[in-house]
Amino acid sequence: MTKQNVTIWNEYRHEQHNKTVADIYPQGIHTAIGEGLGQEFHVRYATLDMPEHGLTEEVLNETDVLIWWGHKAHEEVDEAIVERVYQRVLHGMGLIVLHSGHFSKIFKKLMGTGCDLKWREANDKERLWVVSPGHPIAEGIGEYIELEAEEMYGEHFDIPAPDELVFVSWFTGGEVFRSGCCYQRGMGKVFYFRPGHETYPTYYNEQIRRVIANAVKWAKPSERTYPKYGNAQPLEPLN
Amino acid sequence: MTKQNVTIWNEYRHEQHNKTVADIYPQGIHTAIGEGLGQEFHVRYATLDMPEHGLTEEVLNETDVLIWWGHKAHEEVDEAIVERVYQRVLHGMGLIVLHSGHFSKIFKKLMGTGCDLKWREANDKERLWVVSPGHPIAEGIGEYIELEAEEMYGEHFDIPAPDELVFVSWFTGGEVFRSGCCYQRGMGKVFYFRPGHETYPTYYNEQIRRVIANAVKWAKPSERTYPKYGNAQPLEPLN
Amino acid sequence: MTKQNVTIWNEYRHEQHNKTVADIYPQGIHTAIGEGLGQEFHVRYATLDMPEHGLTEEVLNETDVLIWWGHKAHEEVDEAIVERVYQRVLHGMGLIVLHSGHFSKIFKKLMGTGCDLKWREANDKERLWVVSPGHPIAEGIGEYIELEAEEMYGEHFDIPAPDELVFVSWFTGGEVFRSGCCYQRGMGKVFYFRPGHETYPTYYNEQIRRVIANAVKWAKPSERTYPKYGNAQPLEPLN
Amino acid sequence: MTKQNVTIWNEYRHEQHNKTVADIYPQGIHTAIGEGLGQEFHVRYATLDMPEHGLTEEVLNETDVLIWWGHKAHEEVDEAIVERVYQRVLHGMGLIVLHSGHFSKIFKKLMGTGCDLKWREANDKERLWVVSPGHPIAEGIGEYIELEAEEMYGEHFDIPAPDELVFVSWFTGGEVFRSGCCYQRGMGKVFYFRPGHETYPTYYNEQIRRVIANAVKWAKPSERTYPKYGNAQPLEPLN
Repeated sequence: MTKQNVTIWNEYRHEQHNKTVADIYPQGIHTAIGEGLGQEFHVRYATLDMPEHGLTEEVLNETDVLIWWGHKAHEEVDEAIVERVYQRVLHGMGLIVLHSGHFSKIFKKLMGTGCDLKWREANDKERLWVVSPGHPIAEGIGEYIELEAEEMYGEHFDIPAPDELVFVSWFTGGEVFRSGCCYQRGMGKVFYFRPGHETYPTYYNEQIRRVIANAVKWAKPSERTYPKYGNAQPLEPLN
Repeated sequence: MTKQNVTIWNEYRHEQHNKTVADIYPQGIHTAIGEGLGQEFHVRYATLDMPEHGLTEEVLNETDVLIWWGHKAHEEVDEAIVERVYQRVLHGMGLIVLHSGHFSKIFKKLMGTGCDLKWREANDKERLWVVSPGHPIAEGIGEYIELEAEEMYGEHFDIPAPDELVFVSWFTGGEVFRSGCCYQRGMGKVFYFRPGHETYPTYYNEQIRRVIANAVKWAKPSERTYPKYGNAQPLEPLN
Repeated sequence: MTKQNVTIWNEYRHEQHNKTVADIYPQGIHTAIGEGLGQEFHVRYATLDMPEHGLTEEVLNETDVLIWWGHKAHEEVDEAIVERVYQRVLHGMGLIVLHSGHFSKIFKKLMGTGCDLKWREANDKERLWVVSPGHPIAEGIGEYIELEAEEMYGEHFDIPAPDELVFVSWFTGGEVFRSGCCYQRGMGKVFYFRPGHETYPTYYNEQIRRVIANAVKWAKPSERTYPKYGNAQPLEPLN
Repeated sequence: MTKQNVTIWNEYRHEQHNKTVADIYPQGIHTAIGEGLGQEFHVRYATLDMPEHGLTEEVLNETDVLIWWGHKAHEEVDEAIVERVYQRVLHGMGLIVLHSGHFSKIFKKLMGTGCDLKWREANDKERLWVVSPGHPIAEGIGEYIELEAEEMYGEHFDIPAPDELVFVSWFTGGEVFRSGCCYQRGMGKVFYFRPGHETYPTYYNEQIRRVIANAVKWAKPSERTYPKYGNAQPLEPLN
């Protein structure tokens, strides 16, 4: 079995301009996520400031699953690259959108909604409960994942009802959040996973890493020809 | 009980340039749909060539449910009006998209997919089977609706899996189609309904009219305040 | 518009044997729920110790929506009555299952799963967040409903993924729960609503009452003939 | 990677009493299905007339995915065995229900509905269209699977709305059918797949075999501990 090709895209700005973040993720959030995936996958990295944001046609064509972390520079992502990623998803590439990526152009375009939510940076404890215990993305995970401190995201989360809801989060301050959400879009699979604010070491957490690895496996492209659209001859006699 | 305000939007081009269509819908497709709704609703009309396509802020603010028929001029619909309709849907306005409206800008924006399909103009018989027998949109409808001749639309239909699937169509030429599809987007309800090619008298069919009227009732806005998004104070002590 | 016929079924044992409960619900939980529904509906009551548990063929045939509260005597409910209610749901009667009714025979039969959960009687605060803001069952409800003290129910809740998820609960002790769940079964609509432990005055809460009234309206039977099943003649020539 | 353990259960009556069926499936339908799965899985067989219908605790405990074909002897399946299979599904065993198994005790118990449908034995052509093109169960399948002659099953099919709908069938005689339906029940995955009437050589069809093999992979148990239910201590201080 050949390894899946995973491209991890990171905005990679906080790590270069904010000492707190740089101390936690000295090589960037993308590298921490990539190390978490281990040797099971073929991992490559792409960041906002690379030419074409690192997401050239060539790179995307070789990508089975794209992981996306962005936050304060969503607007700097070129529309043409968003369209390119979008078409790749509809043609089967998996997409895993992390945390503040809820407001990325690509996620909003795929959801068709505003994707807004409540938030608070106040060291809430987060507990992600598994609500779909047989789902492959929850494999190896206990009843819940506990994160000692995280940014809070609260409902209402303005997304379409997920095709499959895997995690629901509890926060100290009194909120809940649908924090692990699966969607099919065209031939592609999309997973939104909430945790991972840049000021917390969330992507070193073994359970979080396991969820991301599970999601990469779940989101792998299906081996099928792309559907034919347009004018069609009848398969049966019409009269 | 006050009447629901329904605005019926029609591209209104075929009727003015094609004699076949003009003979079937001399007052335009919108008028036939409006007459089908009867006296139960307060109906108004809007067409592409009106200023702001007839969809001014004022009109939309007074619209509970918008019905959309478009075909060959999707590209002429102004982006600003699309955005205005989109925001109204997220804030609760119902939207019923008919037939070739599957390729309208507003439907694609709300779905997040390509919305492509197979099609054929060859007088296929269509039979729309009810697959959700207790759904309010199927109220008063028999086991199926039969249309003697219609344009064929066939799978794969590139939409997200519907939140609720109400009708599945059979066509003489050998295809099937998910032809009645419900979605929630933000606070708004969206219903896609397949039938209604301009060269057939489909919108005079009593069962088709009943489905559209049912859908208008189903899609009525919910009386609730729009959710608050953004930075949130804790509801419980954090320590 | 004629009023919907609502039958409220209550086990009605705690109120007769437990002073705490009797003090809160001196006329029984069913009466408190019925008063909450107000004059908009035609309400009747049925309890476990009535002949046929009060659910005769005649009563059920005149019932549009049945509300169910049971707890410690699920096993005493006669199988024949369960089957009768089950058939009525498949034929279109709405069913609203409250709180500990999650373990009733009728709910388990309709769900096809074990319906187990975590629980704790320790005066947790409960906050029910609306996650489907345009849903008719959430009409008139704020962003959340807060109950100062309730029994905790926690995930995993062993139900099928709801067709529509309306509420998710937060509890002080650290758990979450899918607390407002919609299902279609045959022609009937089923709504599970979590709150209402017998030792708390939950059914006097105005927001809780509003949710139950909304659910009654949502669950009303559809006016349609029951589908035909069995051997079928072809509608089209086979050769 | 160790092979998945698949148990194929067959009623195995038609083949022993009906020459037409025996000529098509001389070793039984189960054997044809098993040969179709090939060497990729560890296959074992069980039939109605074996002690405990071949589904002993030991066999089930070693079964990752159970395939079920039954038709005229559903009533002879022992309730205790049905309960045993049911518990195994809730604890994670996959279940693939074929064709007339829609009326089996185990399927009806898991669905919570009547599972009735229309049918006709008249050599209709069946065309199973893929409506979820990225789904793993459709991997390697073209736009549709064509079966020259099959029994017809038509809507309405009295099942809960599938969690995922993969195939929709077209039949010559004018009907449609949701013919590939995915469900989660407890920790287990359930797939209903329509084709396979005993008088047709359907289980020798390569595409049908591919779907069944795909479904076995999809339905494999998740490696997770069974959820804890019952009384729970708080995870956070209550005051």
